[in-house]
Amino acid sequence: MAEPLNTNIRVNTERLWDSLMQMAAIGPGVAGGNNRQTLTDDDAKGRELFKSWCEQAGCTVGVDQIGTQFADRPGTDPTALPVCIGSHLDTQPTGGKYDGVLGVLAGLEIVRLLNDLNIKTRRPISVVNWTNEEGCRFAPPMLASGVFAGMYTLDWALDRQDAAGCRFGDELERIGFVGEETVGARKMHAFYELHIEQGPVLEAAGADVGVVTHGQGLRWLEFTLEGRESHTGSTPMPMRLNAGLGMARVTLLVDEIARANAPDAVGAVGHCDVFPNSRNIIPGKSVFTVDIRHRELSVLTDMESQVREGAQSIAEEIGLNISIEQVGGYDPVAFDAGCIDNVRRAADQLGLRHRDIVSGAGHDACWVNRVAPTCMVMCPCVDGLSHNEAEEITPAWASAGADVLLRAALESAEIVD
Amino acid sequence: MAEPLNTNIRVNTERLWDSLMQMAAIGPGVAGGNNRQTLTDDDAKGRELFKSWCEQAGCTVGVDQIGTQFADRPGTDPTALPVCIGSHLDTQPTGGKYDGVLGVLAGLEIVRLLNDLNIKTRRPISVVNWTNEEGCRFAPPMLASGVFAGMYTLDWALDRQDAAGCRFGDELERIGFVGEETVGARKMHAFYELHIEQGPVLEAAGADVGVVTHGQGLRWLEFTLEGRESHTGSTPMPMRLNAGLGMARVTLLVDEIARANAPDAVGAVGHCDVFPNSRNIIPGKSVFTVDIRHRELSVLTDMESQVREGAQSIAEEIGLNISIEQVGGYDPVAFDAGCIDNVRRAADQLGLRHRDIVSGAGHDACWVNRVAPTCMVMCPCVDGLSHNEAEEITPAWASAGADVLLRAALESAEIVD
Repeated sequence: MAEPLNTNIRVNTERLWDSLMQMAAIGPGVAGGNNRQTLTDDDAKGRELFKSWCEQAGCTVGVDQIGTQFADRPGTDPTALPVCIGSHLDTQPTGGKYDGVLGVLAGLEIVRLLNDLNIKTRRPISVVNWTNEEGCRFAPPMLASGVFAGMYTLDWALDRQDAAGCRFGDELERIGFVGEETVGARKMHAFYELHIEQGPVLEAAGADVGVVTHGQGLRWLEFTLEGRESHTGSTPMPMRLNAGLGMARVTLLVDEIARANAPDAVGAVGHCDVFPNSRNIIPGKSVFTVDIRHRELSVLTDMESQVREGAQSIAEEIGLNISIEQVGGYDPVAFDAGCIDNVRRAADQLGLRHRDIVSGAGHDACWVNRVAPTCMVMCPCVDGLSHNEAEEITPAWASAGADVLLRAALESAEIVD
Repeated sequence: MAEPLNTNIRVNTERLWDSLMQMAAIGPGVAGGNNRQTLTDDDAKGRELFKSWCEQAGCTVGVDQIGTQFADRPGTDPTALPVCIGSHLDTQPTGGKYDGVLGVLAGLEIVRLLNDLNIKTRRPISVVNWTNEEGCRFAPPMLASGVFAGMYTLDWALDRQDAAGCRFGDELERIGFVGEETVGARKMHAFYELHIEQGPVLEAAGADVGVVTHGQGLRWLEFTLEGRESHTGSTPMPMRLNAGLGMARVTLLVDEIARANAPDAVGAVGHCDVFPNSRNIIPGKSVFTVDIRHRELSVLTDMESQVREGAQSIAEEIGLNISIEQVGGYDPVAFDAGCIDNVRRAADQLGLRHRDIVSGAGHDACWVNRVAPTCMVMCPCVDGLSHNEAEEITPAWASAGADVLLRAALESAEIVD
């Protein structure tokens, strides 16, 4: 193994922050954040800026057939697979300035630092900007990395449509980012993704950085309960078929199941509607979505069974018809042990306060992990706020994450004297 | 006391039903019911038809300053106060053909029957059509009877506005039904109201008729719970301030409190909203209305305290801000013992299956009871369905109710040989 990077070497916080702010000037939001949705004109401007920065840093910037950008810094060994670093530059319609962007521009900062110090690596380093991570304009999210990992076919992805009926493939062509490279043909020695946490754990724990060991698996179950609309005054309690009461009981059941599987399980009902939603009418129908997550597939599957069976019992007790449809989901991800070690060791070497963490949200790294050794680094964010224009991080948090990313990536890429 | 009516004398079912169907032809709904909301052109047409029928039956039809119609059949004693019978002709936007209408047209059928048989009464009999019972166009419901009973001032009532900004007083004038009679100046010896049950109790019990002993008291409490919006995946269970969970727990609490006060208590949450109502966001806010009812004021007050205190505890446990606003309510009503006796005796004399019942909905009789001895008679309705175009009753149920109404009213009005 090559010798580790001297611990006095740190990323240029000011340069990294300045690049974040320049990128944030493209597609500004209405409240201080960003609206730079995928395959819009502003997305194209962001991509061009990224490309120009990478080329100024001596990289060759390739694009694959789904628009994902790869900025390659060559290694000394022409046969070695690249170490890839990246995330996404697209944002939610009322998104923040850091979500995704930090992971891409920290990769750029690493290339700039290696150039400054004239550090050579045996393996190439490639900075990646995955297309359409957010999924807000074209569902599903993590679309390009999903095709890259073989979850979806390219044709299916290109046929996705936005709310206005625009086709993904047509919009990709319109903004000029259809590349030649076959999606997924590029093999990776390792992939590292730095991302803001989008949750409150690291900040509350006073940690500088999170070592992401797992990505939670998710199940979205949409319930429809049907009882009988009736008058709240003139229907005696024993004669009610109250679909709103059933919804309330399932909501509590989900909470209980999540707490019974502490500390890693979560569960909630975020979306719920009753019909006709009138003060003096007992709900005849309710529709709501249960969101349950866990980092272990066996526990997640067990939780799902408990929710389904418990809800069935509740419906029978009240006298409701019940139907359950899975409307979303993915299996848990266990990141690569070797990559996790590299990240944790880097944080230790730098004397940073770190803790293991499970990603609660989906990320490109969760798909890439299926085809290459992968790990994520997480940076705290203020109040856990994300997908919100008020999303905020500190320059110190950003550079701590980038420093860990740098050292972990160099561990994989191998410094050459 | 005068002699009772021969039990062979019954209302003319066919004539009563025919009048119901003729009235239903005015302001038909989209699904077989009626849309004859108060102070619309169709309401005016309904009023004119009622007036012409009453005049054909020899009545003098007066109108008071809030538009309530009184069709008077004189008694033999010029000093005696009238016995009033009635309900309302206005409907919900998707209302049924019987709700209210049956009570008015049964009064008309009674006058027609007395004319047919040349029966004289010592006291006058007056058939009443109260203005704006429904309250769907101009809140609150039971507006005219509320002014009649001194609950609201006339000026306040005339200033009510509908969703389009039209003023009640202006609309009353537009349709030509501003009368001269001071609201409430008319004194009543007794008031009887026949109404469909709007609940499932009588039909389920196989009863022909209900003797209404009480009207439930009502409290509407609107709750606003405020927690913190956060990501369903990345927010650990102990760090959540889930306003939707609080709503679910209060919904269960209300159900438990109602069941603990069986058999007369009812309670439910019919209206509820969470914000932002997204599958992967923990609700930061919930707004919902608790509806609790009981026929005894002391129990109702106690139930309200239990709901308020229990909800406070739930909010504290979860860490939510809570505010509670009473957005509606009235106290329970105990109808007049003498009038109740008259109704029960009439049902007995006719050999009808009857049972005592508590009115779960508000009715004009609930206000009138404050200023005159009052009782209600209830008629079953299919599946308890009301405020719905599919509302249905049978001709036999309609005439059984009208027969009881006839005999109870004559008991008060006193037949003169």
